[in-house]
Amino acid sequence: MLPPLQRDQIDVVLVSPRNPLNIGAVARAMANFGFDRLTVVAPYAPHWREAKSAVGAPGLLKNARQVATLAEAVAACTLVAGTGTLTHRKPEQRVIQLPELALPVSDSIAAAGRVALVFGPEKHGLTREDLSFCHLLVEIPTDARQPSMNLGQAAAVCLYELAAHASQPLPTTPGPSPKTISGTQTASGTLDRIATLIEETSLAAGYSPRTMQDANRHDLRLLLRRLGPSERDSRRILGFFRRVLRQLTHPPTR
Amino acid sequence: MLPPLQRDQIDVVLVSPRNPLNIGAVARAMANFGFDRLTVVAPYAPHWREAKSAVGAPGLLKNARQVATLAEAVAACTLVAGTGTLTHRKPEQRVIQLPELALPVSDSIAAAGRVALVFGPEKHGLTREDLSFCHLLVEIPTDARQPSMNLGQAAAVCLYELAAHASQPLPTTPGPSPKTISGTQTASGTLDRIATLIEETSLAAGYSPRTMQDANRHDLRLLLRRLGPSERDSRRILGFFRRVLRQLTHPPTR
Repeated sequence: MLPPLQRDQIDVVLVSPRNPLNIGAVARAMANFGFDRLTVVAPYAPHWREAKSAVGAPGLLKNARQVATLAEAVAACTLVAGTGTLTHRKPEQRVIQLPELALPVSDSIAAAGRVALVFGPEKHGLTREDLSFCHLLVEIPTDARQPSMNLGQAAAVCLYELAAHASQPLPTTPGPSPKTISGTQTASGTLDRIATLIEETSLAAGYSPRTMQDANRHDLRLLLRRLGPSERDSRRILGFFRRVLRQLTHPPTR
Repeated sequence: MLPPLQRDQIDVVLVSPRNPLNIGAVARAMANFGFDRLTVVAPYAPHWREAKSAVGAPGLLKNARQVATLAEAVAACTLVAGTGTLTHRKPEQRVIQLPELALPVSDSIAAAGRVALVFGPEKHGLTREDLSFCHLLVEIPTDARQPSMNLGQAAAVCLYELAAHASQPLPTTPGPSPKTISGTQTASGTLDRIATLIEETSLAAGYSPRTMQDANRHDLRLLLRRLGPSERDSRRILGFFRRVLRQLTHPPTR
């Protein structure tokens, strides 16, 4: 049985959308399928204003949250699913096909988590940096000769798929999932706090040269999402590293 | 088992589409999901020309068939499925929800028939007269407060649903399996080496009192197994903690 998939635990996140018509189309698809939490990351201001003030724009568009970074957009989420095609990249996280998305989404919601479904800009989609905030990459199964979907249509298809499982249970493998054992998954913002602490510890220990800092930060972000610590694990990890860092930066006099 | 659903036995039919962008969006969704037979009924000529000549218009749009009436468009079809919502009308034929569409479609194709999926004009959808040519009315399950979908998005969702049941899988770029991404799981002995190092680091940082050592060792062992790092992750973790421990136990003279 698929655990209940509650729409209000799902955020739709648009990263730097350009075309006001596409923004409107995403909002309309959300309204069609009963989703109403939209976050827009660093939109191009004139187009964003235009989209919001369009005739017939759904209320959820006027109430959309606007933030500066993807990190901020997904800080409260325990499952961040990026959308895109794999044509031009080598994925660094788990890839699933859209028809399989409902299961991890409802698992996360059942574990009292929030889920973000992230769409990239029209031209090039999510960047490698954006994807490093994602636990999963969701692929819509499209024809390799024309794999790239229009933003509004991609959102419609994804939300249709999730909505189909919102109230209707599906047969799945029985038995408790690892999630049930380890407790609530950690919110993205907490993972970022862990990453920052580890980075500071690395520097304090002289482990990582400054020239490698960006690459290491990227890898670390992915590593933490692969490991998927529970909230409780994360609190321990934070406590541990705070102590280690303090000791490294303020060693007691002997 | 569903009988085979061959895409080339399915015609997409647009009745009097107005907006060239919508026509282009339908064509794009068709290309995304591997359908290539488009018929347009009585289009508004200037908009139809504009849609066909748009930059990046898929070949299937340029090759679309243009006819004067819906009767002509579906003359060769054995199953005609009209799309729409029931908000303002009393259906005169069988109504099915989109997730159930694949079965009658593949049944018809198995019986050597052709299928038409018909979309009405943007403003009001298919008329009662149009619907009289339809065997079925397909409803996309949408929110009653915002039931009406954008034409391009409705087509994308319908074709996604049919493509999911097509006999011929789409040519897609296969992604690596999760194993390839995260690598071989770590052997238990390596996890124990990590645990020992973390324990020594804890002690060196004064994080954990000696009286708690056994309980902490136990928790740490479980934590590492829950996280399940790959071999590659584990090598990084080991290297990192070796460095931190060294720095804690042999701080450089300042």
